[in-house]
Amino acid sequence: MNKFGRVPKRQETGEMMMNVLAVGCHPDDLEIGCGGTLAKLSALGHRVTMVHVANGDKGHAVIKPEPLRQMRAVEAQEAGALIGANVISLDIPDLSVKSDNDELIRKLVGVIRQTRPDYIITHPPEDYMKDHMEVSKAVFDASFSATVPHFEAEGNAPHCDKPMPIYYMDTLAGVAFLPTEYVDITDYIETKIQMNNSHQSQIKWLRDHDGIDFLDFVRTVSKFRGLQCGKPYAEGFRQCTAWPRLTTERLLP
Amino acid sequence: MNKFGRVPKRQETGEMMMNVLAVGCHPDDLEIGCGGTLAKLSALGHRVTMVHVANGDKGHAVIKPEPLRQMRAVEAQEAGALIGANVISLDIPDLSVKSDNDELIRKLVGVIRQTRPDYIITHPPEDYMKDHMEVSKAVFDASFSATVPHFEAEGNAPHCDKPMPIYYMDTLAGVAFLPTEYVDITDYIETKIQMNNSHQSQIKWLRDHDGIDFLDFVRTVSKFRGLQCGKPYAEGFRQCTAWPRLTTERLLP
Amino acid sequence: MNKFGRVPKRQETGEMMMNVLAVGCHPDDLEIGCGGTLAKLSALGHRVTMVHVANGDKGHAVIKPEPLRQMRAVEAQEAGALIGANVISLDIPDLSVKSDNDELIRKLVGVIRQTRPDYIITHPPEDYMKDHMEVSKAVFDASFSATVPHFEAEGNAPHCDKPMPIYYMDTLAGVAFLPTEYVDITDYIETKIQMNNSHQSQIKWLRDHDGIDFLDFVRTVSKFRGLQCGKPYAEGFRQCTAWPRLTTERLLP
Amino acid sequence: MNKFGRVPKRQETGEMMMNVLAVGCHPDDLEIGCGGTLAKLSALGHRVTMVHVANGDKGHAVIKPEPLRQMRAVEAQEAGALIGANVISLDIPDLSVKSDNDELIRKLVGVIRQTRPDYIITHPPEDYMKDHMEVSKAVFDASFSATVPHFEAEGNAPHCDKPMPIYYMDTLAGVAFLPTEYVDITDYIETKIQMNNSHQSQIKWLRDHDGIDFLDFVRTVSKFRGLQCGKPYAEGFRQCTAWPRLTTERLLP
Amino acid sequence: MNKFGRVPKRQETGEMMMNVLAVGCHPDDLEIGCGGTLAKLSALGHRVTMVHVANGDKGHAVIKPEPLRQMRAVEAQEAGALIGANVISLDIPDLSVKSDNDELIRKLVGVIRQTRPDYIITHPPEDYMKDHMEVSKAVFDASFSATVPHFEAEGNAPHCDKPMPIYYMDTLAGVAFLPTEYVDITDYIETKIQMNNSHQSQIKWLRDHDGIDFLDFVRTVSKFRGLQCGKPYAEGFRQCTAWPRLTTERLLP
Amino acid sequence: MNKFGRVPKRQETGEMMMNVLAVGCHPDDLEIGCGGTLAKLSALGHRVTMVHVANGDKGHAVIKPEPLRQMRAVEAQEAGALIGANVISLDIPDLSVKSDNDELIRKLVGVIRQTRPDYIITHPPEDYMKDHMEVSKAVFDASFSATVPHFEAEGNAPHCDKPMPIYYMDTLAGVAFLPTEYVDITDYIETKIQMNNSHQSQIKWLRDHDGIDFLDFVRTVSKFRGLQCGKPYAEGFRQCTAWPRLTTERLLP
Repeated sequence: MNKFGRVPKRQETGEMMMNVLAVGCHPDDLEIGCGGTLAKLSALGHRVTMVHVANGDKGHAVIKPEPLRQMRAVEAQEAGALIGANVISLDIPDLSVKSDNDELIRKLVGVIRQTRPDYIITHPPEDYMKDHMEVSKAVFDASFSATVPHFEAEGNAPHCDKPMPIYYMDTLAGVAFLPTEYVDITDYIETKIQMNNSHQSQIKWLRDHDGIDFLDFVRTVSKFRGLQCGKPYAEGFRQCTAWPRLTTERLLP
Repeated sequence: MNKFGRVPKRQETGEMMMNVLAVGCHPDDLEIGCGGTLAKLSALGHRVTMVHVANGDKGHAVIKPEPLRQMRAVEAQEAGALIGANVISLDIPDLSVKSDNDELIRKLVGVIRQTRPDYIITHPPEDYMKDHMEVSKAVFDASFSATVPHFEAEGNAPHCDKPMPIYYMDTLAGVAFLPTEYVDITDYIETKIQMNNSHQSQIKWLRDHDGIDFLDFVRTVSKFRGLQCGKPYAEGFRQCTAWPRLTTERLLP
Repeated sequence: MNKFGRVPKRQETGEMMMNVLAVGCHPDDLEIGCGGTLAKLSALGHRVTMVHVANGDKGHAVIKPEPLRQMRAVEAQEAGALIGANVISLDIPDLSVKSDNDELIRKLVGVIRQTRPDYIITHPPEDYMKDHMEVSKAVFDASFSATVPHFEAEGNAPHCDKPMPIYYMDTLAGVAFLPTEYVDITDYIETKIQMNNSHQSQIKWLRDHDGIDFLDFVRTVSKFRGLQCGKPYAEGFRQCTAWPRLTTERLLP
Repeated sequence: MNKFGRVPKRQETGEMMMNVLAVGCHPDDLEIGCGGTLAKLSALGHRVTMVHVANGDKGHAVIKPEPLRQMRAVEAQEAGALIGANVISLDIPDLSVKSDNDELIRKLVGVIRQTRPDYIITHPPEDYMKDHMEVSKAVFDASFSATVPHFEAEGNAPHCDKPMPIYYMDTLAGVAFLPTEYVDITDYIETKIQMNNSHQSQIKWLRDHDGIDFLDFVRTVSKFRGLQCGKPYAEGFRQCTAWPRLTTERLLP
Repeated sequence: MNKFGRVPKRQETGEMMMNVLAVGCHPDDLEIGCGGTLAKLSALGHRVTMVHVANGDKGHAVIKPEPLRQMRAVEAQEAGALIGANVISLDIPDLSVKSDNDELIRKLVGVIRQTRPDYIITHPPEDYMKDHMEVSKAVFDASFSATVPHFEAEGNAPHCDKPMPIYYMDTLAGVAFLPTEYVDITDYIETKIQMNNSHQSQIKWLRDHDGIDFLDFVRTVSKFRGLQCGKPYAEGFRQCTAWPRLTTERLLP
Repeated sequence: MNKFGRVPKRQETGEMMMNVLAVGCHPDDLEIGCGGTLAKLSALGHRVTMVHVANGDKGHAVIKPEPLRQMRAVEAQEAGALIGANVISLDIPDLSVKSDNDELIRKLVGVIRQTRPDYIITHPPEDYMKDHMEVSKAVFDASFSATVPHFEAEGNAPHCDKPMPIYYMDTLAGVAFLPTEYVDITDYIETKIQMNNSHQSQIKWLRDHDGIDFLDFVRTVSKFRGLQCGKPYAEGFRQCTAWPRLTTERLLP
């Protein structure tokens, strides 16, 4: 057994509670990319807020956008409830996420000012589809604007002190992504799978129609990232390298 | 004030003592690249071993190699003594460090098996002169060989369990180096300067002969790395990304 | 002393005057990133134009946007006056710079056609906040459009001959930036500091409120870049690698 | 002679016909970047569709936009006719291509759904001017949206099954581009030259006015790429690395 | 089902037999990194030669080097026999592989000249331990030297015509490796597992002593690489980009 | 015409003569990679020394090593004589260049101390064959050792003041090389071709036996690099980024 495990990590001591804001694109993206980390954070006593920017209304071939939008909102709440996370939808229709959109930034800034995160987890700037990439850029922008007193956003929460660290989670299937930090999610892999399983509109469709076992997909990526860092299951991250977001301590659990 | 500072970091709790092995090329390289981090580790109760591979015998234009070798050995001991570190010289003549050399590897493996480090700090594989680069490669090699039971090394310490994480410290003047982890050395900058000042054969020569204030050089780099991560003084590092050395927790102080 | 300094550099011969256009985001960004280089260019007889795209109206927690906008316009003029540079504001409100905005491009093209720069200095495409990044992209776009005869821009200056070289200046605190060219600004560091000091609304606020000595920040980065290239003070740049902007001679002073 | 040439390649067997969609920015960009590859594909029996997003209306100093637009449309048709390709113009005015524009995406999705490409060739995300870069991003976006059933596009072709592989062709003059795949176009270099020669409004202008022999430019780049892979003439490509576009077989001819 | 599968690939036509030389470091490295690809090549009628440079004599904590060396030679033969591959050991003791060693190069050149490979598969230049990295460098060197008529090597096979393409297989656990080509090994995954299972001295030890299921490790990496390219199981590769080894057709199966 | 050409460049003023040391691997490598630049330097009045480390004795299929070695020494002298360069052979047999070899370093240091170069041109650390790569590493090492007073080398020239800047020339066929500086060699392309033509043992063999027109190869690469920077012919370089070799002025002609 690894002796590095002998003392509780900073986040495990219970001495400090952090607010962690995770912003994904579609209602299931956070569950895929960092569900285990969020579950762990929550179990350690931190306050987790999960935001999905797009409402996922076009994520099905048969179910129409409006009913799908409603189904997915419920699914997202169920997934978040499994770890006691607060779940917020920015309700942007699929394929319409634009980081240049002022309204989106004002919404995001509102959420950031309300949740006052110690750090943010989101998509990396390069991922497999535009909406994901736009979310990443919008979060980068909003997390700065949130600190500007005279920037007017949704809600009336006061501005934040300074831009917070951002961690980029894995891309879909880990394509073109080299993590620099890993989180051991061994004790939370089943929770992660359950969280993903909450998204039945997606899981069922892929299984029945395409013969794809998406939960196995998710488990495999977590297992692979675990192999890389010597744990049964893990998730990989890369920190946003932009001033003044760099840190001298580890914030991931 | 940054709220992230409210609780002691893992290494500050005193619950866990680590062995940290720092391997530099010349007698003053560790002081330049990670002196503040070593001072901090030591202050936090960890056991620090400082190895210089080359004896520094050609680091002067006037003083001859053999007397210089002896002077620098003393200077290195003085620098280490300032933080209570154990200082070891592998006594390779300057400009003769070769990572392909079996004898060097056996010496390094001997030190690693003896000190049983939780992690190692050394030069990055690319730096401003060959001896530095060779040290980096030799450490990478030896830290693996140290775990192989049937590899025979100097001394009779038993083999280590598994290859330990390696952190690459900054290059000289930070050229072509992008840190991914920073260590706040604000409380240790003066100690770092003192450690560097122990190397009078170098400091004095540069000042008298070339008009270079090397202590100011060292301070400036630490201040710059501090600016990058929001601290008065810091040191930058990059982790060696090779299996099975990746970790799921921060080991740097 | 370095023998490379024995003959005057091209720009020092006085035989050739160049137009240099520097485009920063906020009123103080050029002073931070390339103030020494601009001072040097001006001292060597070149014509320097400093453009700030955003008016800096949200750069203070207490002073309201409109009065701040006016204060900063004055400060920018003062800074430019120190080196005899022409200072132009594009007057975009902070947090509203968008490279996709036609009006911004037309303004920038107007400035480029008017100033007819031999080369342009601006932010790199990746920096610490979105407005900076958008300025970089807008300048890249506008400097091409400025050469297209049938592109209609502000003003009535004729189109330029061909896209001019672009140099990207350092990021804030040098994060994630590896310069490929350095400018020795040793003789101009005090002017650079003075130029930065002109931005009292920023300097004073940071000092009184946050205890940050921004002038020291600026000096430290210049000193660090100097260490890297063997000069007391320097600034680092990277050339935009896009056809037909590559050159066979050095244009930086 | 290279023994690897002994058997016909997959695409040469005639057993399988593919639809290849090439999307360039201006009317001559595909001819410059992948004309030889398109000629080869066509000669091998594949169906080639050439799209130019911008109408090229500002590509001349003397001819006015509207007449130039008409001339270039004809030239593009002529170039495509040389290889039996279907040529489509999206008719966006020069310097107005924006990947954020919904109308452009709907047009592109319409074309993709209509042509049902086995793969797409387009500009890389970084090139020498913004319109090129925007085309690359728009194609990336549209090729995903084309597979989303409830995304409404131009025309009434049904949605595609899954995002198709994308190959990025060379930048102009090969600047900052490292190919990972090469296509031998030795037998098609003269066709490529002819295709480029169809764009007389460009060729003639450059020759008469600037003394530039653009056909020689094109030939030189193809010859250089040929030297790199051991063929008289070749074109270089890089695959878009994004899930689920990666393949286990070569699709380029 | 993917329509790209409708026609047999070049290597599946049976019209052309290739010689493929795979050079790994230890007796099980090829099985881990490209066992499925080698099994596929063999099944398609190509001639596969598997070389292990090191004899694996130090790969066990209990079994002594000499008996282990003999056991592993047998295990390697068994693994190769499963796919009808010729297995060659260069018999270098573990932790003694040096690409600078003339004798090693002469041995490798001898094997290359004897097997006359159409292409070579080996470790990438950066991997998790020095012996692997040295093998990669030695193969790069030897595959050039093999083409030099007056270079004297082991054996008396004549020199080869030209340096052959080299494909770098995955690193251990895929750390820091971004594949540019994938091979679908779905039909060969069980063979790959069996090949790995032949190395009982390694598998058993890891299972009994460390509780590590190495076959599951291997399967997981193959499954992950499969997820990335849309197949149940795959292996990832990157081509060596050095003249004159670049190709205009795919050589991997 | 480009207005940047109106004043003479630094090196063209005749006010300053520099010593330039070019170190290639085989007798024709400098001619291929930087022949035009060396010709230009020489024409501008600088002192050029051309060193080939390997004697080229295995560069032919028919001519035996010893006679070839002699022929190539003559050819190298002829090529150098065309531009008035001093030509030195270190006379290492082909395929035997090792940067770890003390004798080689001592020879190189001897040459460096003798020629006292203002800067050095050599191969980049990654190229198409090992000997080239070893030369690059050896030059990097030797150019540092040359400045160490107590390092004993061949000859009795005194040590140099400080490590000089190093420029890496293009790889063969420009594979995997992205230049950051270009030299306009338009006026020297025919001299470059002549220099290459001096190496008749290579040119003739390639033409008669393999049907390769190597002079055309060389011309094409120069033409391509010219296209990239807007000149008829050019050569590309990248500076070695290692302290204290970075400069604040352009040294290439």
